Amino acid sequence: MSNDTKTGQTSVIRDLLPEPTLQRLPWYLAYVCQLRAQGVENVSSTQISKHLNVDSSQIAKDLSFLNIRGKTRIGYDVVELENTLKDFLEFERQHPAVIIGVGSLGAALIQDSGLTRYGLNIVAGFDIDPDKIGAHMSDRIPVYHIEAMQKTVSRLGAKIGIITVPPDQAQAAADAAVNAGVKALWNFSPLRLRARQGIVIQDTSIYSHLALMYNRLEQQKRNEN
Amino acid sequence: MSNDTKTGQTSVIRDLLPEPTLQRLPWYLAYVCQLRAQGVENVSSTQISKHLNVDSSQIAKDLSFLNIRGKTRIGYDVVELENTLKDFLEFERQHPAVIIGVGSLGAALIQDSGLTRYGLNIVAGFDIDPDKIGAHMSDRIPVYHIEAMQKTVSRLGAKIGIITVPPDQAQAAADAAVNAGVKALWNFSPLRLRARQGIVIQDTSIYSHLALMYNRLEQQKRNEN
Repeated sequence: MSNDTKTGQTSVIRDLLPEPTLQRLPWYLAYVCQLRAQGVENVSSTQISKHLNVDSSQIAKDLSFLNIRGKTRIGYDVVELENTLKDFLEFERQHPAVIIGVGSLGAALIQDSGLTRYGLNIVAGFDIDPDKIGAHMSDRIPVYHIEAMQKTVSRLGAKIGIITVPPDQAQAAADAAVNAGVKALWNFSPLRLRARQGIVIQDTSIYSHLALMYNRLEQQKRNEN
Repeated sequence: MSNDTKTGQTSVIRDLLPEPTLQRLPWYLAYVCQLRAQGVENVSSTQISKHLNVDSSQIAKDLSFLNIRGKTRIGYDVVELENTLKDFLEFERQHPAVIIGVGSLGAALIQDSGLTRYGLNIVAGFDIDPDKIGAHMSDRIPVYHIEAMQKTVSRLGAKIGIITVPPDQAQAAADAAVNAGVKALWNFSPLRLRARQGIVIQDTSIYSHLALMYNRLEQQKRNEN
C-alpha cells in the first residue's frame, strides 16, 4: 500500500498528537472547506475561534502540530490549511473497508457519500440474510455471505471492518473480520468488543450518545425549574 | 411531559454520575440484554468484566451509582439489572425528536429500529428538497419544508433536533431548530455547532472517529514494522 512510503517527519508528529487535538482537526477542516467554497483567502485563529467556540490559543497550538503557522495580521492561508488538514487526516487516501451487517444502519453507511469524501472506501458488505446476499448495495457494493469473509477480505485488501450487526452478533462478526485480516474495527454496536492486541477498535456508540443526551436534557430541565 | 414527575432520589444520583460511567452503562445494558435472552439469571461483576474488558471494581462502582449491588457468590440479578439500567438510561421513555436533513444519513437514522428501541421517537423530518417534502419516510414520518419547523416542532412537542444536513447548512439548521423550541441538538455534522446557553449539544462526529481510526491504524502499522 502507498501508505508504507510515508516518511519520518509526519510520522513523528503523528505519534505526539494528543487525541483531543486529533478530534478537533476535522472541525477546522469542515470550517475551512466552507471558507474556501466562499472564496475566502485567509482566516485568523480568532475567526476560527469565534466560529467553532474553541480557544484561539488552542487552535494555534493544534495547528502547530502540523507545522502550520499563520501570518501576523493575515492569518492562515485557507487553501494551504485545507490541503494540509486533508493530507494529515488521510481523508484524501482510499481506506478499503468491509461492512458486516447490511441492515438499516449498514445500508445507510454504504449510501452516505460523506464517508466516501472522508476517505472510507466500502468495497463489500456481508450478511446472513439470503435476500441480501448476491445483491449490490447502492448498485455497486456486492453483498456476500458472512462465511465468504476470509477469502473476500484478503482479495479486496480491506483493512477496516465496520460492525453494524445486532448486539448479540457483534462479537462473532468482529472475530470473523479479524480472522479474515482486518486491522481495525469500527464498532457501531452498543457492545464493547474484544480483539487481540494490535487491532484498532473505534467505537461510535450512538446509543451511548443518546444516554448522555437524555441525561443532560434532564439536568437542564431541572436547572431551569 | 411525564418526565416532569421524576422524583428527587434518582435526580440527585444523576447529577453525581460521572460521564465515563454514563457512557459505560449502555455497554452493561447490551450485555445483560443478551444474558436475559439466553435465560441466564445471575451475572457477577467478574463475568461482566471479562466480557466487556472493564475492570470489575469499576463495574461495581458504576452500578453502585444506581443503587444496584450484587449478592456475594451469586452476583447481580439479570432481569433486575436490565430493568434498572433501562429505567435509568431513559431508553424506555419516548423522546420526541425531529430530524433536519433527510439525505442518506438522515433517512438511515429514521429507519434504524435500534434508535426506537433506545427511546428516540422521530416524529418528523425537515428538508429543502421539493421531492422529499410532503412524502413520508419509512411510510410514517412526514417530511416538511424547513420553514415549517417553528409550528411543527411545538405542535409535536419535539425536544431533540437531529442535525444531518451538509456541514455548510448545519449551523443554520441548528439555529432554526433551537428557535422552534428544541432543547437538545444531536449533531452528526463534522462542524462544531453553537447554541445559546441551556441548549444541550451532543456531537456524534463520525468523521472525527474516522480520523482517529486512520491515525491509530497508521501507528499500529509502524509498531509492527
